Amino acid sequence: MAEYRLDPNQYHFKWNNKLEPALTVGEGDVVHCWTREVTNGQVTPDSKAEDLTQIDFDQLYPLAGPVYVAGAEPGDALEVEVLSLKPDDWGWNGILPGLGLLADDFSEPYIKHWDLSDGKTTRLRDDIVIPLQPFCGTMGVAPAEDGEHFVLPPGDFGGNMDIRHLNEGATLLLPVQVKGALFSAGDCHAVQGDGEVCVTGVECPMSFSLRFNLRKGANIPAPQFITKRSPLSVHDTGDGYFATTAVGPDLMENSKNAVRRMIEWLGKEHGLQPEEAYCLCSAVGDLKISEIVDQPNWIVSFYMPLCIFT
Amino acid sequence: MAEYRLDPNQYHFKWNNKLEPALTVGEGDVVHCWTREVTNGQVTPDSKAEDLTQIDFDQLYPLAGPVYVAGAEPGDALEVEVLSLKPDDWGWNGILPGLGLLADDFSEPYIKHWDLSDGKTTRLRDDIVIPLQPFCGTMGVAPAEDGEHFVLPPGDFGGNMDIRHLNEGATLLLPVQVKGALFSAGDCHAVQGDGEVCVTGVECPMSFSLRFNLRKGANIPAPQFITKRSPLSVHDTGDGYFATTAVGPDLMENSKNAVRRMIEWLGKEHGLQPEEAYCLCSAVGDLKISEIVDQPNWIVSFYMPLCIFT
Repeated sequence: MAEYRLDPNQYHFKWNNKLEPALTVGEGDVVHCWTREVTNGQVTPDSKAEDLTQIDFDQLYPLAGPVYVAGAEPGDALEVEVLSLKPDDWGWNGILPGLGLLADDFSEPYIKHWDLSDGKTTRLRDDIVIPLQPFCGTMGVAPAEDGEHFVLPPGDFGGNMDIRHLNEGATLLLPVQVKGALFSAGDCHAVQGDGEVCVTGVECPMSFSLRFNLRKGANIPAPQFITKRSPLSVHDTGDGYFATTAVGPDLMENSKNAVRRMIEWLGKEHGLQPEEAYCLCSAVGDLKISEIVDQPNWIVSFYMPLCIFT
Repeated sequence: MAEYRLDPNQYHFKWNNKLEPALTVGEGDVVHCWTREVTNGQVTPDSKAEDLTQIDFDQLYPLAGPVYVAGAEPGDALEVEVLSLKPDDWGWNGILPGLGLLADDFSEPYIKHWDLSDGKTTRLRDDIVIPLQPFCGTMGVAPAEDGEHFVLPPGDFGGNMDIRHLNEGATLLLPVQVKGALFSAGDCHAVQGDGEVCVTGVECPMSFSLRFNLRKGANIPAPQFITKRSPLSVHDTGDGYFATTAVGPDLMENSKNAVRRMIEWLGKEHGLQPEEAYCLCSAVGDLKISEIVDQPNWIVSFYMPLCIFT
């Protein structure tokens, strides 16, 4: 068992199974990484909303890696144990026109900077305090399909999954697509709700450590994972949740309407402007499918933790 | 403030804003109810799988009520506080051909009986023990639209919402549609996961008590609620969760595939037959929308609590 520190300058922007490995590891080995936030430094603590319209999309998703795992073959599952996640002291989220669940409602760029320096919480306002629950938004193996692939869409190889429960102590299983797996990770979030509704979590540079193992011949069809933290969400306190619902035959429309109704509630009850409410929804609100069987109307609910309102 | 006990023989099967009230209450009043399980006694502890194909759908959803709330007018929100929920000592879930998320995969009826007599847990097998978290699957006000309406599909008036977090201590807000609100409830579940994927929770007769209040002129567009219990799920213990994922452009297909993969895992890891695995998924597995913005591929995850495997 060995430990490695990946050179922070060793990163790539696209999935590509022909990339040279940045590092070769064996089973049980640990890799320590650090990545810039999702725009690779195009957004800084001084950035204004307008700057978000100037982002070079070819510089998105700087990923640490690829890590070649000796012995990994297609058909195996790569087991990635999340050992630690430490955000730097600043993060941002915001609205990127054309992206996000409510792209039709929000056409202007918006940015919110978050002070992460206390390492435990961050504030939207003096009376809105959000506990952090960091994870890597992107963890994946190189896809089997040759060529360069944009990182935005995830796939059965993993990638930009934005699964908020891949926290310290979690174990991710990825279906190996090519010899050596060629694992990469980055796009770190200090906190994010289920859905990542405005298309950004609290995006931040982060240090993280991962341990690799193999499950030979596991033949899993898509990523799977095991969580360990309790409660599952750090926001799950005795304060409870306020939830909006939307009822109808389309899960996507329901999701949009449930979030719209939460934004309205955040305005009425907490005086938040729609843009900051939307960003708050993305940072801490959870989309749940309450029922998917009472035909023809399904219910999507959107849960806002009440512990954040101090 | 008064307390009432609704006659258990006072129930109805359809939403209809012309029904005579079973009871008239004022703000702050409490109503104690008991309802049969969703088939109104057509399913009993002796029922076999085949019996599920003989169910008379006109006898589904015996609902306690309607309760006329004095002063309630369209535009108000009816506030329903869930004071207590006590399942009887037996419940069932199963597969009803033609219904459920995986109706295409499961064409035969199947029934599972659950012993609820200890009041706290129930068993699928000696080594699979499920903590209970009861709620009323159906709580609603009479719809504005005249006529008789089948209870299966929920609507903006609430109804068959199957929201598993409407537990003791929760407060539900419903948009009043007609004078007096005409609230009814029933279809109780001893436990159910987010999604209710096989179309049945653990269906059981249950005693429940509710307190009514009004928020005049609240003008909410659809049901909203506040939860209070911590953790949100009684299954959220230090044992964590195993989760499957499905990645793709359609939330419904993803939901199906995530559940299919869990059924496969339950077979491999715990020796469950597909039918009992599907029923277990419906009883305790949670569908979450992990991300809905990484276009064109969304991720639905299905979480199985590991505390149930003893």
